[in-house]
Amino acid sequence: MQTITRDQIIAVLPQLDLLPIIEEGFRAYSAGDAVVPPVGELLLDKGEVHIKYGYLKGGSYYVIKIASGFFANPKIGLPTGNGLMLLFNQDTGEPVSILQDEGYLTDVRTAIAGAIAAKYLAPSEVERIGIVGTGVQARLQLEYLKSVTPCRKVLVWGRGSEQLARYQQDMASQGYSVEVTPDSGAVLQSCNLIVTTTPAREPLLASANLQPGTQITAMGSDTLQKQELEPEILQVADLVVADSISQCLVRGEIHHALDSGHIAQGDIIELGNIIAGNSAGRTAPDQITIADLTGVAVQDIQIATAVYEALA
Amino acid sequence: MQTITRDQIIAVLPQLDLLPIIEEGFRAYSAGDAVVPPVGELLLDKGEVHIKYGYLKGGSYYVIKIASGFFANPKIGLPTGNGLMLLFNQDTGEPVSILQDEGYLTDVRTAIAGAIAAKYLAPSEVERIGIVGTGVQARLQLEYLKSVTPCRKVLVWGRGSEQLARYQQDMASQGYSVEVTPDSGAVLQSCNLIVTTTPAREPLLASANLQPGTQITAMGSDTLQKQELEPEILQVADLVVADSISQCLVRGEIHHALDSGHIAQGDIIELGNIIAGNSAGRTAPDQITIADLTGVAVQDIQIATAVYEALA
Repeated sequence: MQTITRDQIIAVLPQLDLLPIIEEGFRAYSAGDAVVPPVGELLLDKGEVHIKYGYLKGGSYYVIKIASGFFANPKIGLPTGNGLMLLFNQDTGEPVSILQDEGYLTDVRTAIAGAIAAKYLAPSEVERIGIVGTGVQARLQLEYLKSVTPCRKVLVWGRGSEQLARYQQDMASQGYSVEVTPDSGAVLQSCNLIVTTTPAREPLLASANLQPGTQITAMGSDTLQKQELEPEILQVADLVVADSISQCLVRGEIHHALDSGHIAQGDIIELGNIIAGNSAGRTAPDQITIADLTGVAVQDIQIATAVYEALA
Repeated sequence: MQTITRDQIIAVLPQLDLLPIIEEGFRAYSAGDAVVPPVGELLLDKGEVHIKYGYLKGGSYYVIKIASGFFANPKIGLPTGNGLMLLFNQDTGEPVSILQDEGYLTDVRTAIAGAIAAKYLAPSEVERIGIVGTGVQARLQLEYLKSVTPCRKVLVWGRGSEQLARYQQDMASQGYSVEVTPDSGAVLQSCNLIVTTTPAREPLLASANLQPGTQITAMGSDTLQKQELEPEILQVADLVVADSISQCLVRGEIHHALDSGHIAQGDIIELGNIIAGNSAGRTAPDQITIADLTGVAVQDIQIATAVYEALA
């Protein structure tokens, strides 16, 4: 059993063209070529643990990911999130590798899903990218959007001026020209590709500010409770896309909009079907499109396999 | 993160007094002091994978066990079963240790559960131990029964005369005087502590041969389909004990007897409640008692923690 460290993973990632690899995961998932059981969940006093697992039919490995969030960790100098991934041989059950990524691969595969959503759903001319939130995912989303849009103008919303200033500075060093705002409405009013990355439990974006020709990638909400968008936004949208319809029935923005009757299950399209060409993505510049990404084990399967094979 | 190998585990086990440790796990489970979510399951073309996980409230670690069975493995010189256990810090989610036991700790904690069942349920004078099956568990059960009964007389049933002869020889070297039989009825007729260890899908033991004053530990059946006992045996029994009532509703012998109406849910007692003294075990020599053991994550939590702490 090969141990792969976080440092090895960080070193190898730039050599990998992960976008088509994750796309293939979504395609297989929507085509029924992946086996992905329901997420296992363990709740503790100070945190929560998710177990995501599965395999692509005809592949070499099955992958089990253990990811945790312990929200008091920063008080003792530890990151909130942690995690690891395990690869096993699909023919024998033998453990093949442990990837001690400490949650980094989850961050990366989540950012790549955002890039994939933008590739298929964003207007062909992205004028300004709107980012809601200033954390790890707010940074990685911009990093991975580089490969799908030439736009380098950004408006970022956040609660703290210090965090906003730091984000502005960090992203400038990545080639982005970032303006900051304490008004989330301004993001909807002036950006046509918006990525929401917060763990908010009350909507941050109101439908009143929504403009035609906008793509919103809702990345933050991945549980029953979390919510970043007013459900009216999904009702008004021309296209509502889920990474996993079955998962979005119980998690994320779609689940809230279904519960409140703003959309119906038949309105939802799966990302993998757009990638496969079986469903249309954006078909006109003034459409409003929403992607609700809750995170699917196929992303973990694909990125873990790619990293292992690059280092094996 | 500390890696612990199978060899290290085998070397340290004889130094550990595991019976009270596993007993404490069952007690905590039945008292509601353990959090054990439903078992995760992954089905593949050539095998199956189970993910068992949880923690004891107030403990130091949570444990995730991944166990597999790939039934064509022996054809290519590999054992059917494999597995590993992972310990994480209950306060921070940090990975603490990976125990690469290849399934050995599952075998051991299963054998210890059999010893615990015998301790509380077997007649005080065990005249002869009956073993149904000749595999790994048939061997380990005898090894761990040594600490709870002085009886060294055994009758073993198996399908192959070669396997029976090998079992007889191996157990002789452990101090057991073993007779063999191709007739499973003879086991019920002449033994008063019986342990069934096969993956049978049709009953091997018929109620017609059942004698008063018998304890049967049904160890083999741990899935929806597997079955070793006629359900009439559970109906006739004075005491039907489950390691986990909720699990036995959908797995093991109890599930079959419930489905066929031979017993009712109210007839079932949980092992941890007997250990705690909240329910009676055997109260008379001529009672018939049955323990249906399907394997609970608390056993894994307890054995993994004990091994880690002994080697840390």
